Amino acid sequence: MVNLGIVGGTGYTGVELLRLLASHPEAKVKVITSRSDSGMLVADMYPSLRDHYPDLCFTEPDAATLAACDLVFFATPHGVAHALAADLLSAGTRVVDLSADFRLRDADEWSRWYGQPHGAPELLPQAVYGLPEVAREEIREARLIAVPGCYPTAVQLALIPLLEKKLITTQGIIADCKSGVSGAGRSAKVGSLYCETSESMKAYSVGKHRHHPEITQGLSQAAQEAVGITFVPHLTPMIRGIHATLYVRLKPEQQQLTNEELQELFETRYQNEPCVDVMPWESCPETRSVKGANICRIALHRPHDSDLLVVLAVIDNLVKGASGQAVQNMNIMFGLEESTGLKFAGLLP
Amino acid sequence: MVNLGIVGGTGYTGVELLRLLASHPEAKVKVITSRSDSGMLVADMYPSLRDHYPDLCFTEPDAATLAACDLVFFATPHGVAHALAADLLSAGTRVVDLSADFRLRDADEWSRWYGQPHGAPELLPQAVYGLPEVAREEIREARLIAVPGCYPTAVQLALIPLLEKKLITTQGIIADCKSGVSGAGRSAKVGSLYCETSESMKAYSVGKHRHHPEITQGLSQAAQEAVGITFVPHLTPMIRGIHATLYVRLKPEQQQLTNEELQELFETRYQNEPCVDVMPWESCPETRSVKGANICRIALHRPHDSDLLVVLAVIDNLVKGASGQAVQNMNIMFGLEESTGLKFAGLLP
Amino acid sequence: MVNLGIVGGTGYTGVELLRLLASHPEAKVKVITSRSDSGMLVADMYPSLRDHYPDLCFTEPDAATLAACDLVFFATPHGVAHALAADLLSAGTRVVDLSADFRLRDADEWSRWYGQPHGAPELLPQAVYGLPEVAREEIREARLIAVPGCYPTAVQLALIPLLEKKLITTQGIIADCKSGVSGAGRSAKVGSLYCETSESMKAYSVGKHRHHPEITQGLSQAAQEAVGITFVPHLTPMIRGIHATLYVRLKPEQQQLTNEELQELFETRYQNEPCVDVMPWESCPETRSVKGANICRIALHRPHDSDLLVVLAVIDNLVKGASGQAVQNMNIMFGLEESTGLKFAGLLP
Amino acid sequence: MVNLGIVGGTGYTGVELLRLLASHPEAKVKVITSRSDSGMLVADMYPSLRDHYPDLCFTEPDAATLAACDLVFFATPHGVAHALAADLLSAGTRVVDLSADFRLRDADEWSRWYGQPHGAPELLPQAVYGLPEVAREEIREARLIAVPGCYPTAVQLALIPLLEKKLITTQGIIADCKSGVSGAGRSAKVGSLYCETSESMKAYSVGKHRHHPEITQGLSQAAQEAVGITFVPHLTPMIRGIHATLYVRLKPEQQQLTNEELQELFETRYQNEPCVDVMPWESCPETRSVKGANICRIALHRPHDSDLLVVLAVIDNLVKGASGQAVQNMNIMFGLEESTGLKFAGLLP
Repeated sequence: MVNLGIVGGTGYTGVELLRLLASHPEAKVKVITSRSDSGMLVADMYPSLRDHYPDLCFTEPDAATLAACDLVFFATPHGVAHALAADLLSAGTRVVDLSADFRLRDADEWSRWYGQPHGAPELLPQAVYGLPEVAREEIREARLIAVPGCYPTAVQLALIPLLEKKLITTQGIIADCKSGVSGAGRSAKVGSLYCETSESMKAYSVGKHRHHPEITQGLSQAAQEAVGITFVPHLTPMIRGIHATLYVRLKPEQQQLTNEELQELFETRYQNEPCVDVMPWESCPETRSVKGANICRIALHRPHDSDLLVVLAVIDNLVKGASGQAVQNMNIMFGLEESTGLKFAGLLP
Repeated sequence: MVNLGIVGGTGYTGVELLRLLASHPEAKVKVITSRSDSGMLVADMYPSLRDHYPDLCFTEPDAATLAACDLVFFATPHGVAHALAADLLSAGTRVVDLSADFRLRDADEWSRWYGQPHGAPELLPQAVYGLPEVAREEIREARLIAVPGCYPTAVQLALIPLLEKKLITTQGIIADCKSGVSGAGRSAKVGSLYCETSESMKAYSVGKHRHHPEITQGLSQAAQEAVGITFVPHLTPMIRGIHATLYVRLKPEQQQLTNEELQELFETRYQNEPCVDVMPWESCPETRSVKGANICRIALHRPHDSDLLVVLAVIDNLVKGASGQAVQNMNIMFGLEESTGLKFAGLLP
Repeated sequence: MVNLGIVGGTGYTGVELLRLLASHPEAKVKVITSRSDSGMLVADMYPSLRDHYPDLCFTEPDAATLAACDLVFFATPHGVAHALAADLLSAGTRVVDLSADFRLRDADEWSRWYGQPHGAPELLPQAVYGLPEVAREEIREARLIAVPGCYPTAVQLALIPLLEKKLITTQGIIADCKSGVSGAGRSAKVGSLYCETSESMKAYSVGKHRHHPEITQGLSQAAQEAVGITFVPHLTPMIRGIHATLYVRLKPEQQQLTNEELQELFETRYQNEPCVDVMPWESCPETRSVKGANICRIALHRPHDSDLLVVLAVIDNLVKGASGQAVQNMNIMFGLEESTGLKFAGLLP
Repeated sequence: MVNLGIVGGTGYTGVELLRLLASHPEAKVKVITSRSDSGMLVADMYPSLRDHYPDLCFTEPDAATLAACDLVFFATPHGVAHALAADLLSAGTRVVDLSADFRLRDADEWSRWYGQPHGAPELLPQAVYGLPEVAREEIREARLIAVPGCYPTAVQLALIPLLEKKLITTQGIIADCKSGVSGAGRSAKVGSLYCETSESMKAYSVGKHRHHPEITQGLSQAAQEAVGITFVPHLTPMIRGIHATLYVRLKPEQQQLTNEELQELFETRYQNEPCVDVMPWESCPETRSVKGANICRIALHRPHDSDLLVVLAVIDNLVKGASGQAVQNMNIMFGLEESTGLKFAGLLP
């Protein structure tokens, strides 16, 4: 049994961790912290969990209590894990950080995008970017995991088969992404109100979203060369879900590739991946097909049989894009079957 | 392992059965029928189930194949179970009917409300109304279960503690109920289109809904006298969920009951019920707290400390109001732990 | 041309006033104030108004500028109009207050429900409760209008025909009301986030909502005796709309009234009312039929032909429940045709 | 006063025509036809219009009655206007067709995309593609108007300033478009149900949507050369709205263009257009800012200051994308001020 702590448990990734872990047979949440709501029962904040955590309370973060856990999840705004991770690691506690603190390998780049100094650059060498489909072996040995962001998870899973095989032009990639509102978190902001987001669609942070350098880093690693991408996120009136629509071009010398070969490339790449589903050629995955599920569904299109490929990928931003992927990392780190506790089918309708 | 058949699996209660049974450790779906979509892969109609039922196909209903199952669920419009149940029962197969076919004990009343003759009145004596909180022992021995309707489940669970103890006036009860759109099923009707139901609220079938006699039957049984109720359902812009708001009056001789006594009455009545959650006094249960979960949450209010009680009850109409309750019945019938496969926490947010 | 000021224009009733007044031929917004956003262009906060108010800016509230207007609307939280109304009235400026400040005639009762002293009890004698269907003649002469609340508008319009004629029991009335989220305003609260309100339904403030005394006051005036009501509001996942479901009982001596007589009573009562629509007997009005429109639609039901009547009423909470009704009052005060600028059809779908 | 007929008035473009024309001072709907609902009151199907059309009934289409109108709108599926337009035109009645029947200049291409022979190729020479921002003078003289499709309106208005000036590469344009569900019409289809579309996002008809040739035709005309575009529509959980995200590349010789010059290009191109709004550089238009309004809002981005431009455009698919644009065409044809009856501000929130 893995004893767990959660730092910052009142947000959406926190409650989602609790939901997933409630039915995990090999892990148990021992402590969950919240500065703002310490003393409150989890069940009072989240009545959906009344039956599963009747007694668990949010507590003030306490170093010793957390250090007594086998693993601590950070479900916090950026900056918090910077401050607390080193002590936990020293105490032998593994850290799985759902925030952006350790996702970028370059501390200076992190500072540029997040507008503040990096708080723990000395930990970067040991931080592992926790995308199991790319770094499973490193995750197995890791003590500090940076859980990928939601958009980066969808975009990378959609494109790495093509980039690893060097089939597509690495410049001019377009990622038109659509996210549900839970991606904006549970903080009280006018822009996230029901009346501001329902029945409307808009782009935001065009070319300026903080997931941009993370996506570029991951794709460049897969391609083994610098990748240039235009990333435009859109806010969509739904709670959960990311739909990534990727536009890429086959290299001139690869244009003889048949549709069957492209489809097979993806199927082969992901054939042993429990959390990636390659759908039939020309499928149109719906975000609702992954609602609550730790899976990324991918489908390929080649409109007008040109050199342009359209890759579609959907995830639940709170599951495969955050808390589910965090649990997947935990499972790997502790030698458990990778999908343990993550086998829910999507809630449809 | 219980071998299962599902008749009429393409609707929302059908796919919900599949979702719940996908993680049930003691039951397996062997056959699922559909006249309209026979030959189609379940995974093609419901991509959310691709990982769980990669090979299961809808097939034409076939008597022998169904009779070879231990239990057959009917997830069909009314009338179908009337036609097929007798042969299955004769073959020793148990039947759990999610439709309205066997819910009313009086065949004539059924005919009045459904506008057609009752197709199997000879089976009524053995049909058990499958509300486990009321009829657990009969369910254990039953071979033919009528799964309660969604509204009746919420309304009965909210009121039976009061009626059983004869605390409230049995006439003039008001049930103002709100349902998500999935209650209207998956058939192609203009009235269920997104553009007809989103961003709007309306009452419908005021005093004329087919769940009226089922509610009256259940409440009258609990009260051991005829109960008179006004039931007004409302269509609400959400996929899942029923919110029942019940207005009842304490009998004159019971008005000295304290709030604590009333709360305790409910807590005691349901203390051993795995699928009913009595919330603290004056709570306001949200339907999202039970989204995807097989639970009914109930809370009590007594505004202005008068003789009028307001009882609030929420369920997921597709789970505790249909498929989850069907599985709960199956568990009881086969001597399994009652919540097996039904322990999901609600998907919140 | 009526020159107008708006105090507190950044909330939903403020922008709705601007939308309605943009096409009003006899009125012009000269000044709109906001402490938090002074200096900002209205068009930058509300791009929907770019074409209609290209140059209008939010400004700091300034007494002289406001006093130079013919009429000032208060679209503010309670308490603000208390502080500012007297000076404006002294300057000869009419005041139409959309907040609750002058709705209750009894300053002590106001204090009890709002938890603070009444800030301007000396103005109460001249304040007119601006429900045109009840107080048109007083509104014509008024200098200070309290625009009715959203729930009270729907409930009163639904019940006053019955109460004025003394046809129903004045105790035990039940008002089960459902409101869209815009009723909670545009302030940044977790409870109003998309992810907290979408796909869910809940009751709130059961028996404790601040509109309770306002409803009671209005119904009691219509009945000319004290009315007892249980009012349970529910939060509904839609932006706009109130659906009121009222349960009332005919007095014993009135039970011989036919359905036709009841229907005629309503049609007669409202036959000259431009903003009330009595629908045919047993209609089920949808809130979307009034989306953006200054109208209340009402329909009558008598389930099971008993003594219990169900009256359904729908309004757009931001129009007939707030800003539209405010403009309707202004029209009456300035001798304009009452529906001027208010003739939009509901936006359906 | 322009006397109007509407053929096929029960769909969403039909009811939207009625809504807009209800407040049009110079036009009057004399007849509205429906084969399926003839005899029904418009007010019974659309209660939102009860106050505006108390007596108007749907009637069987009748040639003589329609021919007596000054202008007939077709709000029908494709094929209907093919069959009926010639006779109306012969009778001197103008025709404004909201369907796709006369949008493509090449009858063979029409046949390929619509899978049936073109029913009226002889009328194509006189058909005018009714995009006022491009063809105002031809519209003024036209007797047969093909109202542009919803996606084509947004995409063309977003790109023609760049194409007309030959600033961008005409191959490899990407149009990632998102539409509300009303674009699928009011027919009873499972795919348009609330429970199938709410809380989900998906692409559809990737590279195969029937608006593809219409977009290509319009852009190629603006560019005066063949344009190659990849068009991927997405279904979005909202009733109304199209959000077009366009990705285009400046020609190598144009990359010295400054952001200011690009912005000015758009502002100049549309400075006298009443129904196009160029927002400030790097704005993110929301579809809700045009809900119910006959306007297209456009904004420009140049992420990473590269040669790639992102143009964002939003419209209400039922207004500027259909019925509003139809009325705009009518106004031009009859010499009325172009925005007559079209000055509504968007309904926000």
